[in-house]
Amino acid sequence: MSEKKRRRPEPGTSKRSRSSSSSHAHELKNQLKPDTEILSSLHRLRAATQSSSDQTLTLSDLNLSSPCREVSDLDSSSVRLAIERAALSAARSILSGNGFSFSIPSRSSSNQLYLPELDRIVLKDKTSSRPFASLSTVRKATITARVLSLVHAILLNGIHVTKRDLFYTDVKLFGDQTQSDAVLDDVSCMLGCTRSSLHVVASEKGVVVGRLVFSDDGDRIDCTRMGIGGKAIPPNIDRVSDLESDALFILLVEKDAAFMRLAEDRFYNRFPCIIVTAKGQPDVATRLFLKKMKTELKLPVLALVDSDPYGLKILSVYMCGSKNMSYDSSNLTTPDIKWLGIRPSDLDKYRVPEQCRLPMTDQDVKVGKDLLEEDFVKRNEGWVRELEMMVRTRQKAEIQALSSFGFQYLTEVYLPLKIQQQDWL
Amino acid sequence: MSEKKRRRPEPGTSKRSRSSSSSHAHELKNQLKPDTEILSSLHRLRAATQSSSDQTLTLSDLNLSSPCREVSDLDSSSVRLAIERAALSAARSILSGNGFSFSIPSRSSSNQLYLPELDRIVLKDKTSSRPFASLSTVRKATITARVLSLVHAILLNGIHVTKRDLFYTDVKLFGDQTQSDAVLDDVSCMLGCTRSSLHVVASEKGVVVGRLVFSDDGDRIDCTRMGIGGKAIPPNIDRVSDLESDALFILLVEKDAAFMRLAEDRFYNRFPCIIVTAKGQPDVATRLFLKKMKTELKLPVLALVDSDPYGLKILSVYMCGSKNMSYDSSNLTTPDIKWLGIRPSDLDKYRVPEQCRLPMTDQDVKVGKDLLEEDFVKRNEGWVRELEMMVRTRQKAEIQALSSFGFQYLTEVYLPLKIQQQDWL
Repeated sequence: MSEKKRRRPEPGTSKRSRSSSSSHAHELKNQLKPDTEILSSLHRLRAATQSSSDQTLTLSDLNLSSPCREVSDLDSSSVRLAIERAALSAARSILSGNGFSFSIPSRSSSNQLYLPELDRIVLKDKTSSRPFASLSTVRKATITARVLSLVHAILLNGIHVTKRDLFYTDVKLFGDQTQSDAVLDDVSCMLGCTRSSLHVVASEKGVVVGRLVFSDDGDRIDCTRMGIGGKAIPPNIDRVSDLESDALFILLVEKDAAFMRLAEDRFYNRFPCIIVTAKGQPDVATRLFLKKMKTELKLPVLALVDSDPYGLKILSVYMCGSKNMSYDSSNLTTPDIKWLGIRPSDLDKYRVPEQCRLPMTDQDVKVGKDLLEEDFVKRNEGWVRELEMMVRTRQKAEIQALSSFGFQYLTEVYLPLKIQQQDWL
Repeated sequence: MSEKKRRRPEPGTSKRSRSSSSSHAHELKNQLKPDTEILSSLHRLRAATQSSSDQTLTLSDLNLSSPCREVSDLDSSSVRLAIERAALSAARSILSGNGFSFSIPSRSSSNQLYLPELDRIVLKDKTSSRPFASLSTVRKATITARVLSLVHAILLNGIHVTKRDLFYTDVKLFGDQTQSDAVLDDVSCMLGCTRSSLHVVASEKGVVVGRLVFSDDGDRIDCTRMGIGGKAIPPNIDRVSDLESDALFILLVEKDAAFMRLAEDRFYNRFPCIIVTAKGQPDVATRLFLKKMKTELKLPVLALVDSDPYGLKILSVYMCGSKNMSYDSSNLTTPDIKWLGIRPSDLDKYRVPEQCRLPMTDQDVKVGKDLLEEDFVKRNEGWVRELEMMVRTRQKAEIQALSSFGFQYLTEVYLPLKIQQQDWL
């Protein structure tokens, strides 16, 4: 729509700056090669991903001086067995006159370790004892026993519940939900299984659309036939199975406005891909879903986030996990996500108009500088350069800023050109 | 699962109160009749809804002393025509030496009116003039002209954009997004069409599952085959069409945790229904979708919300609209929603344990008292009684509080019994 529109001088905008940025947009459009050529760079990327992902390291591949702890997905009967063992050992301990105590892995930051080889945070081996017969831990030991018994019942019934449901089963004991939530994480670590293996799920936020077919609780879902709204990502990852796809890549999008643009323009028909968003901060369900897609389909993941420190923070959560669930990092994290855009260097390269860039606040700059100290940024030179540029120029921009060149500039020029130039880091 | 579990005395909970509330839950379960009998009350409800909804009043049916204003859904070409007319009339006015001015309907609360006959808020006929040649309105007049031209381009292209996209097309002119958003509402009123007719959409939040088949942008969606995650409600209501359903009712749920429970238990297979949630505050897309289902399928709507003033506020938004979009109330509101639960009187009736009820804050009580003054509450005696009880007892409870009787108590006892007893208001 907008070439004509753009050239009209707006009040408060000089004719010159407008038309020059608009003609630049036009120039970029002219650089686009035929789609078959653009697609070939995606074919190469997928091939590279598929050959490299066979070598994925796990904790056990590393020869670490001190042991580290991770949890894994266990099936219901294994988790039930682990709970029954814990209960038996407590009963035996009580009968032998020693009362009972749980041994709980510490989840504090002093017990966390970033492993560059795995590119994620894991737990070191510190544990603490939680005896029932101690004034300081009796409440927590009781809550732990109660949560174990509740989880056992949930697994026996074959259902899934939310953390909030769990809390309400015994408000008087738990007091407030932070306490039952914290013990739930303890129990995951103690049993060595993921929180989803406990069948306690977070609410869903994410949506997916594009070249993916999968089963959700036995129902076959074809994500190319989900209209513009897309398919809500199910909260229960263990009921997701049989993924099939002819996509060349996964496009991870920070915001739902961009998701909507891509879905309405059926971007995945022109460039075969799976488009996924958590609508802001990544929730557990979306992270699990992304991980599952990446692992089973062995597809490269390209990320489209805002050009600000929070865009990068979101990438870091997808890639390295959040600190308070680091014990579960191997199941929740998707390493090797490529930063496609919007990158600080794109702002000048694509001549995003000054008025569509936003000044960074002091807090933004601080977050940016903190990120520069993070291992996951440091190990990627390209990212360091981009982030340094962001902090230096003190400018940020949302994905939506590209709308200044026309609403469909994102899908018709920016993304195709990025892909054609293999411009990801 | 929980009968056995419940009877076990918990620390800090007397054996007596626990087991008495648990045995009460058991008693209630025994009151359940066979499903065929429960279904018959739903058949009656649907029949009543289908015969009554033919008489739906519209603004033009009322003989109002002063004219009121509502907008309606217009197709793209009608909206474009209206914009072209506005542009022509402005040009003609300029050429005749009078400059130009827009006549904008006032959306202030003094221009709003609750119509009990329609059970919604509409706009009265006050308008204000927005001349270009005036220091106080030149900026707003310019923004209005700009928004009109942008909307025209969007419609010509046949795409949909978000408010944020619109803002970014001219950050320098709009200054901040509240200004382009406000003018967008002005433009809706001025052209007499809904905001969705302008193809400017809000982001989606809602999900739907159950006995509904519909088309989303041409893709046929069967909501009984959407697993547990459900189908994301599309942001573009004008691309939703061809609704089909064999449901007996629509179950409107406030929160996603309850939605998940209902979806996982496939509640809609036992009691044919369509389950929908906006995950908290209703967004425009979910409200439009509910309205469309109710209108086209002529199904009764039963609501399951928290027993607190905000649960009722949410109902009021679905039923009567929010004040700042009152000009669009006929398209956004779904009158005649039945309040199924959780109602203040349910707390004792279903013996929700004291510790699962929460004390209302002073602010909660104030919101509750304010609601008692609202017309939409006053016209329903049952609602007044319930709300008075809430304010008097100063107790509230979430839907999740029912988990204290077992995670599936909601789907297996509470809802079936409510329906059997036709216990809605």
